[in-house]
Amino acid sequence: MIIILKNGAPKEEVDALCRGLEAQNIRINEVKGAHTTILGLIGDTHKVDMEAIEAQEIVESVQRVQEPYKGVNRKFHPENTVINVSGSLIGDGNVAVIAGPCSIETEEQIVDTCMQVKAAGANFLRGGAFKPRTSPYSFQGLRDEGLKLFLKAKKATGLPIVTELMSLSHLDLFDDVDIIQVGARNMQNFEMLKELGKCNKPILLKRGLANTIEELLMSAEYIFAGGNPNIILCERGIRTFETQTRNTLDISAVPVLKTLTHLPVIVDPSHATGKYELVEPMSMAAVAAGADGLIIEVHNNPQKALCDGAQSLTPKHFASCMDKCRQIASVLNKKVGTLE
Amino acid sequence: MIIILKNGAPKEEVDALCRGLEAQNIRINEVKGAHTTILGLIGDTHKVDMEAIEAQEIVESVQRVQEPYKGVNRKFHPENTVINVSGSLIGDGNVAVIAGPCSIETEEQIVDTCMQVKAAGANFLRGGAFKPRTSPYSFQGLRDEGLKLFLKAKKATGLPIVTELMSLSHLDLFDDVDIIQVGARNMQNFEMLKELGKCNKPILLKRGLANTIEELLMSAEYIFAGGNPNIILCERGIRTFETQTRNTLDISAVPVLKTLTHLPVIVDPSHATGKYELVEPMSMAAVAAGADGLIIEVHNNPQKALCDGAQSLTPKHFASCMDKCRQIASVLNKKVGTLE
Amino acid sequence: MIIILKNGAPKEEVDALCRGLEAQNIRINEVKGAHTTILGLIGDTHKVDMEAIEAQEIVESVQRVQEPYKGVNRKFHPENTVINVSGSLIGDGNVAVIAGPCSIETEEQIVDTCMQVKAAGANFLRGGAFKPRTSPYSFQGLRDEGLKLFLKAKKATGLPIVTELMSLSHLDLFDDVDIIQVGARNMQNFEMLKELGKCNKPILLKRGLANTIEELLMSAEYIFAGGNPNIILCERGIRTFETQTRNTLDISAVPVLKTLTHLPVIVDPSHATGKYELVEPMSMAAVAAGADGLIIEVHNNPQKALCDGAQSLTPKHFASCMDKCRQIASVLNKKVGTLE
Amino acid sequence: MIIILKNGAPKEEVDALCRGLEAQNIRINEVKGAHTTILGLIGDTHKVDMEAIEAQEIVESVQRVQEPYKGVNRKFHPENTVINVSGSLIGDGNVAVIAGPCSIETEEQIVDTCMQVKAAGANFLRGGAFKPRTSPYSFQGLRDEGLKLFLKAKKATGLPIVTELMSLSHLDLFDDVDIIQVGARNMQNFEMLKELGKCNKPILLKRGLANTIEELLMSAEYIFAGGNPNIILCERGIRTFETQTRNTLDISAVPVLKTLTHLPVIVDPSHATGKYELVEPMSMAAVAAGADGLIIEVHNNPQKALCDGAQSLTPKHFASCMDKCRQIASVLNKKVGTLE
Repeated sequence: MIIILKNGAPKEEVDALCRGLEAQNIRINEVKGAHTTILGLIGDTHKVDMEAIEAQEIVESVQRVQEPYKGVNRKFHPENTVINVSGSLIGDGNVAVIAGPCSIETEEQIVDTCMQVKAAGANFLRGGAFKPRTSPYSFQGLRDEGLKLFLKAKKATGLPIVTELMSLSHLDLFDDVDIIQVGARNMQNFEMLKELGKCNKPILLKRGLANTIEELLMSAEYIFAGGNPNIILCERGIRTFETQTRNTLDISAVPVLKTLTHLPVIVDPSHATGKYELVEPMSMAAVAAGADGLIIEVHNNPQKALCDGAQSLTPKHFASCMDKCRQIASVLNKKVGTLE
Repeated sequence: MIIILKNGAPKEEVDALCRGLEAQNIRINEVKGAHTTILGLIGDTHKVDMEAIEAQEIVESVQRVQEPYKGVNRKFHPENTVINVSGSLIGDGNVAVIAGPCSIETEEQIVDTCMQVKAAGANFLRGGAFKPRTSPYSFQGLRDEGLKLFLKAKKATGLPIVTELMSLSHLDLFDDVDIIQVGARNMQNFEMLKELGKCNKPILLKRGLANTIEELLMSAEYIFAGGNPNIILCERGIRTFETQTRNTLDISAVPVLKTLTHLPVIVDPSHATGKYELVEPMSMAAVAAGADGLIIEVHNNPQKALCDGAQSLTPKHFASCMDKCRQIASVLNKKVGTLE
Repeated sequence: MIIILKNGAPKEEVDALCRGLEAQNIRINEVKGAHTTILGLIGDTHKVDMEAIEAQEIVESVQRVQEPYKGVNRKFHPENTVINVSGSLIGDGNVAVIAGPCSIETEEQIVDTCMQVKAAGANFLRGGAFKPRTSPYSFQGLRDEGLKLFLKAKKATGLPIVTELMSLSHLDLFDDVDIIQVGARNMQNFEMLKELGKCNKPILLKRGLANTIEELLMSAEYIFAGGNPNIILCERGIRTFETQTRNTLDISAVPVLKTLTHLPVIVDPSHATGKYELVEPMSMAAVAAGADGLIIEVHNNPQKALCDGAQSLTPKHFASCMDKCRQIASVLNKKVGTLE
Repeated sequence: MIIILKNGAPKEEVDALCRGLEAQNIRINEVKGAHTTILGLIGDTHKVDMEAIEAQEIVESVQRVQEPYKGVNRKFHPENTVINVSGSLIGDGNVAVIAGPCSIETEEQIVDTCMQVKAAGANFLRGGAFKPRTSPYSFQGLRDEGLKLFLKAKKATGLPIVTELMSLSHLDLFDDVDIIQVGARNMQNFEMLKELGKCNKPILLKRGLANTIEELLMSAEYIFAGGNPNIILCERGIRTFETQTRNTLDISAVPVLKTLTHLPVIVDPSHATGKYELVEPMSMAAVAAGADGLIIEVHNNPQKALCDGAQSLTPKHFASCMDKCRQIASVLNKKVGTLE
């Protein structure tokens, strides 16, 4: 960490600041220029409160040199984290595939769709029981009833399931859920993150619409610091001025994250683009960029979907998308889902 | 609502779509161009599911003509909503002032700061007990202990208090809180919004970092539709590429919101800018643009603040800021806080 | 085009508006709802001035239904445009490769780098003679001297060259340049676009940092309407709040553009990311998403580069990147550059 | 400037880097931490090429401590720059007012509008002869014919005129123009900036849609370094995800710029919002935030305007807007335009 002092900062105040830092086991090295004096902080600065320093009158600005996260930092943990759910893996060097409908609607719909995505090679199922919707007048999900139907699909396919938690008060209902999803809108719901740090299930953490890569890692650090190292990061598009796509899929976040952290990184091309015809090319691009997995919306009848129909693939289109991704992945010596 | 059909959409499928809409009491008017056919939907379309229509294969795109919110829409409720907390008003044509520290730290700090902001004319107190922090290693607030200290400041000043709810599980602790704040990061925590719709306290709803004005209104609609019409909207800066300020304060949101909704609109210049020296000019600008209130961070010793010290005013600076705002407000025939 | 009228718009003023539009050969269809009346415009609306209509007092808003561009619109020109420069093609279904240094520095540097990128399979050369630099104190390019050196590289390799035009006053110097590049910062330099519409060379048009896909197509339409149909579009990253990469590469723009226009679409992973280690994964992703070409910065000694060294590949790294791209492209039955 | 070295950077390469910097009269101070070594650079670093350093393999990242601009930096030039055009001032502590139509259409329109804005207190006239339009099918301005008409308005009113330069090739036509405007889309047209540095007229430099405050200052530095210190900066809205306004007016840029530079800063509420009804509140907000001037679009018949009618005020509305601004300005002891 670097502290840039204001011109003419009184020596005694600078000394006081330094003593305060030294009390936190930080060593300080002063660099004096003609117009600027900077303090170089040496030691474990990730717990030093940047804001508190910035509030000092003698301080012009503070800049970090080291990352503010430690547990999820690849520098301190070079090996990849591999998530293992009853033998289905994410982060093992292959491309995991999570697929299923946006929302669970009927037993027929969820079981049939899940059977079909399994046949096309998916190794995890997705489906929404509790749905975050912009409008209170939109379908809000079947809630606990939806979870029950999803468990039928789990049983029918034998595949692990992923579903979104929208409130800690629902956590009791998630006993048989295999991976708990934290949605983009809850990425900085810190009370939820803390609680999930104490839970023994893998967490799928989606990047918020306006959140930086560093903030995503800080949210993962909340879960990690709480004691749960099983975290899957998901890039799902950020908000920009472009309106042709629902969001702008930041595919470069994949290689950037793979460098900064040991956690697996997957991509959601369905929510990122909002258009089914873009799901296949963006899935292929994500695999080519090194993603550890894909989470894709598939509906057995998109035109009748109660939610996100415009971005859902048919099972047939999904199978062809998987086929293309498999070919791309083979260039990187990776498998996609369960099929060779 | 306007539906733009794909070229060559089969007549029977178009008919089926129309029949489905007519069943929702929507009348349809077809406009045929050389390259495009559009359907104009007439009736109460705010509950029609745009996404479901967009998912139809025959549909190229759908555009709204009317706003998707109704309860908070000024068109259907032309008079201003006035929030009345034991005689302290927001939205009555004057400028309400909510002030206090970012976080509650000690009894001395919160009571002293609150007494001083009261003396400078604030009519509501702010203070954080539960704090949303990007890093798990930053100070997280005194939590329930903080709330108890805040109640002492309420008693000492006689002013109503505003504080942030970070989890529904804390709601029981908020009995003596006068206004519940929903933070920017929870603006689309829909489960929380639904629950607050059933609560009988005014809600201060902050705009999310990456949320549009329309989304802010849709979140307000959640609370309104649940039965709670006492909602205060707060512009607090949006995320852009600019880095000189923490966020970009969207002051034009004030007159835009005042046109679209009957709810009061206040501005938070402290979080928007992140720099204490910008709080005064931005407060003056917000008042000049027609804001119904200001929420400002004040600390009796910003350099020792455990949180957001860099953006906190001293009580003395706050008093001078209030003075300037009063002069600006007098141009619009408005009062600021409790002083003339 | 759809015109939404204000509630209570006087009939005579609506009639006047309609008569004005009918005089432009537009047919009008009125749709009357309870709260809103809309006018549906039928005919060739791409020359109708939306803004002039929005300025009418009786008009609430105007929405386009058809795209505002015609010449570059795939709807009216379904076949792909193929750019042919002395037998080197862009847009023919393969992946063209344009490579070379950010800026031309010395004869040795440009000729050596170009020979090496040719050996690795590039079919076009890039190199900057006139350089747009944020700071007036940065290296501004060798200018006309640089162009002369670039022609030596052209001669030595036999490959066509691409270089940026920064001012119309330099156009005379571009006689032997094969493709003229319009940089991101000049995407809406309309006087330049108009002039290039009259020129008989292909134009490589880069998307501006804050420009939408539609605006990019409108700038292409300027060149097309001027009489020059040989336009190559280039996605090179847009500006967002993320700071880990220089810009955010919008790879979904590739399939979106391929649907909207018949022009070829290439990707610049070097400027988009600003980091050489991201160039290979992003090149592979761009090819997987269907790009018609890549433009990549290569320097024979990046550490000594006068410009953009941090994002330049060494010739060796470039060759390996080409190799990976070739394997990805083969999945789509495409060739990359000149090598099999 | 701070250089953060990669872990394990070989001593001889670090030494070579240091020797290179010392040759530029930079002194270097090494700070060694457990995981990181940083080099603190002391001396005049604004000409040191950050990018070249970042390209070194041993360098992890580089951070600036000082601003990269010098001529326009308030630190080195504390007094305000005052622009004086035949006695009409910008930057003298009052609020200058530039008003007139978006584009010059007819003699009657421009002269009449200008007479009316003069009567309402404007001290400069604006009017577009060369118009940057997104679509090639929109009205492009009357060009040299328009300039001639504008000179009639100048003569009729006796007020100095401001108009936009879209190409250096038109510069000869600008002899009688008093202030040359560089539009937002040309803010980084560096060849134009360099040329205008040699010109003896004041330059009104608009902030680009996606440009940071620092980039705006770097563009001003181009003009300043060329020898022309008469620069007026203009905030006119930046591009964000919000669609209710054309752009998002960044009013905090006003006090931020006033701190960083000695140049005057004005605000364009017309282009920022795109809606006439927002011009008055945003003008008032800009004045309250400390702007040195306003540039406002006024048309004697907005409904017939060939360009930007929706954001143009009528002369009557402009007069009332001026009146409100005068009252706001009096709080800051400033005058607005020519009226008391």
